[in-house]
Amino acid sequence: MIIGGAEDKLRQRTVLSDFVKAAGGPHARIAVIATASSLGPEIVEVYDSVFRKLGAAQVSSVRPETREHSHDPAFVEALSQATGIFMTGGNQLKLSGAISGTPFAEAIHAAHRRGAVIAGTSAGASIQSSHMVAFGPGGATAKQRMTQVAAGLGLLPESVIDQHFEQRNRYGRLLTIVSQSPQLLGMGVDEDTAAVVTFEDDRRVLRVIGRGAVTILDPSHIVSNAHEASRSHPILASGVILHALPAGAAFDLTARTLIARDAADDASEAEQIAEAGRDLRRLARDIAAGDVSPSVLRRRKTRSRRRDWPVATRPETTSGHHSTEETS
Amino acid sequence: MIIGGAEDKLRQRTVLSDFVKAAGGPHARIAVIATASSLGPEIVEVYDSVFRKLGAAQVSSVRPETREHSHDPAFVEALSQATGIFMTGGNQLKLSGAISGTPFAEAIHAAHRRGAVIAGTSAGASIQSSHMVAFGPGGATAKQRMTQVAAGLGLLPESVIDQHFEQRNRYGRLLTIVSQSPQLLGMGVDEDTAAVVTFEDDRRVLRVIGRGAVTILDPSHIVSNAHEASRSHPILASGVILHALPAGAAFDLTARTLIARDAADDASEAEQIAEAGRDLRRLARDIAAGDVSPSVLRRRKTRSRRRDWPVATRPETTSGHHSTEETS
Repeated sequence: MIIGGAEDKLRQRTVLSDFVKAAGGPHARIAVIATASSLGPEIVEVYDSVFRKLGAAQVSSVRPETREHSHDPAFVEALSQATGIFMTGGNQLKLSGAISGTPFAEAIHAAHRRGAVIAGTSAGASIQSSHMVAFGPGGATAKQRMTQVAAGLGLLPESVIDQHFEQRNRYGRLLTIVSQSPQLLGMGVDEDTAAVVTFEDDRRVLRVIGRGAVTILDPSHIVSNAHEASRSHPILASGVILHALPAGAAFDLTARTLIARDAADDASEAEQIAEAGRDLRRLARDIAAGDVSPSVLRRRKTRSRRRDWPVATRPETTSGHHSTEETS
Repeated sequence: MIIGGAEDKLRQRTVLSDFVKAAGGPHARIAVIATASSLGPEIVEVYDSVFRKLGAAQVSSVRPETREHSHDPAFVEALSQATGIFMTGGNQLKLSGAISGTPFAEAIHAAHRRGAVIAGTSAGASIQSSHMVAFGPGGATAKQRMTQVAAGLGLLPESVIDQHFEQRNRYGRLLTIVSQSPQLLGMGVDEDTAAVVTFEDDRRVLRVIGRGAVTILDPSHIVSNAHEASRSHPILASGVILHALPAGAAFDLTARTLIARDAADDASEAEQIAEAGRDLRRLARDIAAGDVSPSVLRRRKTRSRRRDWPVATRPETTSGHHSTEETS
């Protein structure tokens, strides 16, 4: 679960409650890794409090601050029972510097393999990709050397993740990176938004939850001058395929294509339309038979308007309704 | 000539000098339309001074402030001899409100047809597309109702132009518009940057000049929920093709594809490589024949390094060079 930073902790908490639910709800045992943060115990206290309120059975802090810690069996062992691991925000280089290539990082991978949910926000999101944005300024235009890439944990292979994507205007730096590494899929996650990645039928599927969008940059067919652009000059990046995905959207990361909305949704929409059609036919019959009073008509009209119409079909249906009235 | 705003007026003046040159250089007769601006005569004075310094023969201010002005033959006639028309920045709705659908706007079209250069910066850029961004906040994520579209002059048909693209973070609003109007090509122009559009062999060709980039969003194959997304919610926009084009890049607006670098460039590069090859062969022959002294070798090496190698081929040639040295 890749969270773009600044996830809501007080009100709806869509992203964090989804995490607790996925980690087992009342059976969730959550380990909070706050290594990236420059804050003291208070950062852990915040998440401890939120996760407990959201019903987690157990929340613990596991915070290696050095590579020595990350080789210490006590830290490694602390992840062995977790059903959910949550990496906080902060400085992703501090986090990766302390844990990458250590038994502690291996314990995160082992947890992932056994089905625990690995979540991270901001710095804790960036580190999940194989290639990690280390730092670099915002800006919409890709420019040579505007950003530095380091190695990430690689929970999501062949990818580079950026966060606070909308709020810090990070199109340019993500585009710079995929121009220089066209084998990577670029993913930008807005604040209070998460890309939830699961395996389904040998495919990686991304689903979006939260307030913003997840932006995918697919450079499979890019034409670029990234090998020869001058320092701080804009980079040519032609033919990148862009997918902006709001909450509810699903994307096949393996095929790099949008997944059509659930057939279930369509079925329920079709049922609504059919029901509306039956209603209108009855109304037309009643009017034709002359056994409907203006007040009955008004009540039915109100009831029919209250129904949650699918927006796309509303104008047609409404106009059909009106013409029925006019002929009466 | 579509300029993204804040074009350099003091130093290199790449964009403005290109405009004066295209308008005829020493024969250029330039009309400045400052209607969009909230500034007084000083805005015209700035451009008057720059264009004269850059060698234009004549600069005049033509500033209709009302639709009455734009029907006035005196204003219309003032454009009849112009070889270049320059529309300043300001408020594009003020400009389009005063001139759209009037004889004055028709005179701009007539000038365009007879080959005059029509240029505009910021507001004066926006109005050139068929569909004009009226206003709307910045932000990287496309959101329902974040922006308003009005009708532009349509000098560039089937398009929507946005400006200050990088500096004001306008990916979101351009993406919103093309999601709702997938027949339009979206074009975002950075500050001190211009998209120069010409007709060549029945095609519209865009060339980029200046400091930043021109971003093209091609929604031909978009999948979107723009018809039903809720107010201020992120919009689904999947499969948009993105082209980020720095100075020197050329783009076929008709086919919507990047144009490969000039064949002329490639020919000169090929000639350089061939020459380098001849040089190396001579060096190898000389060394084999034993008639080359270390000092001759050093001189030749320096001469060969001074040459302006094409960056892409440099490492190979250099390594060839080194191995020749090693065997000597």
